[in-house]
Amino acid sequence: DENLKLFTLNSNKALAEEIAKVIGVELGKCSVDRFSDGEIQINIEESIRGCDVFIIQSTSAPVNEHLMELLIMIDALKRASAKTINIVMPYYGYARQDRKARAREPITAKLAANIIEKAGATRIITLDLHAPQIQGFFDIPIDHLVGVPILGEYFKSKNLDDVVVVSPDHGGVTRARRLAERLKAPIAIIDKRRPRPNVAEVMNIVGQVEGKTAILIDDMIDTAGTITIGASALIEAGAKEVYACCTHPVLSGPAIERIQNSTIKELAVTNSIALTEDKKIDKVTELSVAPLIGEAIIRVHEEQSVSTLFD
Amino acid sequence: DENLKLFTLNSNKALAEEIAKVIGVELGKCSVDRFSDGEIQINIEESIRGCDVFIIQSTSAPVNEHLMELLIMIDALKRASAKTINIVMPYYGYARQDRKARAREPITAKLAANIIEKAGATRIITLDLHAPQIQGFFDIPIDHLVGVPILGEYFKSKNLDDVVVVSPDHGGVTRARRLAERLKAPIAIIDKRRPRPNVAEVMNIVGQVEGKTAILIDDMIDTAGTITIGASALIEAGAKEVYACCTHPVLSGPAIERIQNSTIKELAVTNSIALTEDKKIDKVTELSVAPLIGEAIIRVHEEQSVSTLFD
Ligand SMILES: Nc1ncnc2c1ncn2[C@@H]1O[C@H](COP(=O)(O)O)[C@@H](O)[C@H]1O
Ligand SMILES: Nc1ncnc2c1ncn2[C@@H]1O[C@H](COP(=O)(O)O)[C@@H](O)[C@H]1O
Repeated sequence: DENLKLFTLNSNKALAEEIAKVIGVELGKCSVDRFSDGEIQINIEESIRGCDVFIIQSTSAPVNEHLMELLIMIDALKRASAKTINIVMPYYGYARQDRKARAREPITAKLAANIIEKAGATRIITLDLHAPQIQGFFDIPIDHLVGVPILGEYFKSKNLDDVVVVSPDHGGVTRARRLAERLKAPIAIIDKRRPRPNVAEVMNIVGQVEGKTAILIDDMIDTAGTITIGASALIEAGAKEVYACCTHPVLSGPAIERIQNSTIKELAVTNSIALTEDKKIDKVTELSVAPLIGEAIIRVHEEQSVSTLFD
Repeated sequence: DENLKLFTLNSNKALAEEIAKVIGVELGKCSVDRFSDGEIQINIEESIRGCDVFIIQSTSAPVNEHLMELLIMIDALKRASAKTINIVMPYYGYARQDRKARAREPITAKLAANIIEKAGATRIITLDLHAPQIQGFFDIPIDHLVGVPILGEYFKSKNLDDVVVVSPDHGGVTRARRLAERLKAPIAIIDKRRPRPNVAEVMNIVGQVEGKTAILIDDMIDTAGTITIGASALIEAGAKEVYACCTHPVLSGPAIERIQNSTIKELAVTNSIALTEDKKIDKVTELSVAPLIGEAIIRVHEEQSVSTLFD
């Protein structure tokens, strides 16, 4: 379809190539470089006039570079008369700054939404937002995809015995519940409590894990503190082995070292964030979201073509 | 005055300290750091409710980091009920991307204006915009300061003989004219021409430079190609010695090496952009814009206090 154009910026080119294959188009010709002083230079090398344009970009690290690439690309497409500008953002950066937890904090997740819209985006396709409320930060349509089915299929294919799905904290229970349903397994919850201020946290496990194969699930793993400490607590409580999984492998700072040295047997993640070479260790298994996203793009494009018929 | 708050972000702390001294206030308490994954973390550590807040930040390199720091700070101040949010941006990054020179180019200077306003800025104070038209990219008041008087005072104090002020290209003639008036000197223009495509440019000097002390002036010096080639052409045309000056020392890539090896005797710049240690070479003289900016802040603050009286 000549009216569908797919472009990638720099955050996740491998995923973009895969998505292009899934939907049977070539990636649009475009260079995204830096001038000598570090300013972003974008050249779109083919006409996009009147097209439904999809831009693949996660706002993963370096988040500020990736966010600015996105804004500048949107600006260029808008001025070049794209019909629609659809942002495919598998990982939505700054999502943890989604409320004022303390006085005078910014709400950067809302700022990002505001400036993406202001630049000229007409639609967002994203995956497992840290808080689903972030959907409401946008006044343009947002498609919120979920990664649990992909993680579920993977663990099903491993045929593990006597599984329990574990949420590393109270906030993640719904997510654990969803994975557990797919695996027809029970759930457990790690209940961290600080008995008194300045006293170490105590890990309490709610639910039965003894002798079982535990699968920890979270939406993102950043420094991997929570997940590796959780894994140890599970082993201590008698779990036979511990797997972990998440949608977004942020994996910053000490994460890879912690995972390497942890009791976690295997960590399954999606390619919503590209893994740099140093993060591609044996313990980490990458699952692709390209089919899921490709399908969403086709669906959105069809909807936009239909709406043209009625215009 | 308790209602005036001055904050600095990371681009130019030394200038901010100087400005604070000039206007006789302390810099506001605030930390601007990075989380482990590179996301910006801002903590404003004092109340700013009902205050006129001024933020000092140039969008110099790393431009995307500095721009995002600014946007997030504005968001935090807005949500903390600042009365006005005044952006002091001595150097306005992305100013060269101010028009579509080719098909499908972004106009990033306008994008930056849009997102700064969208974040919640209520006023901008800036200095020597690459194109004065950028003032029109904003719908909020903008104070446009000029650096020529500072450069002029400096060269006057040197008591140079038989000066000619030289514009390195046609675009800069007005600026050269202004400096020349202050120094009661004539002007000359370097007229670059490419006789045929793929033939080297010829430097033609319009005006009298033989035996004179030439002062090249530009708004910014980036890779220093134009200015160092211009200096050689002036020496070849018989100039006795060549000084250079600019408001914004971008100085990226080969700039310092080129200046060091050039026929330029001295380069005078302002501190609109902080010079990193490797750029503080003997040939480069830094002049402060702190008094100029301090005065502008006082003026804006007084105006905003007066408007409160009439509210
Ligand atoms: N990039 C980040 N890395 C670590 N912590 C963050 C980051 N962004 C926000 N936060 C903090 O994480 C907390 C929110 O996390 P959560 O409770 O999981 O939603 C807030 O206190 C934020 O200040
Ligand atoms: N950061 C940059 N470094 C070098 N050239 C740039 C930069 N930003 C924009 N440009 C280009 O510089 C030209 C405008 O410069 P000027 O003619 O001096 O206004 C345009 O062709 C831009 O594409």
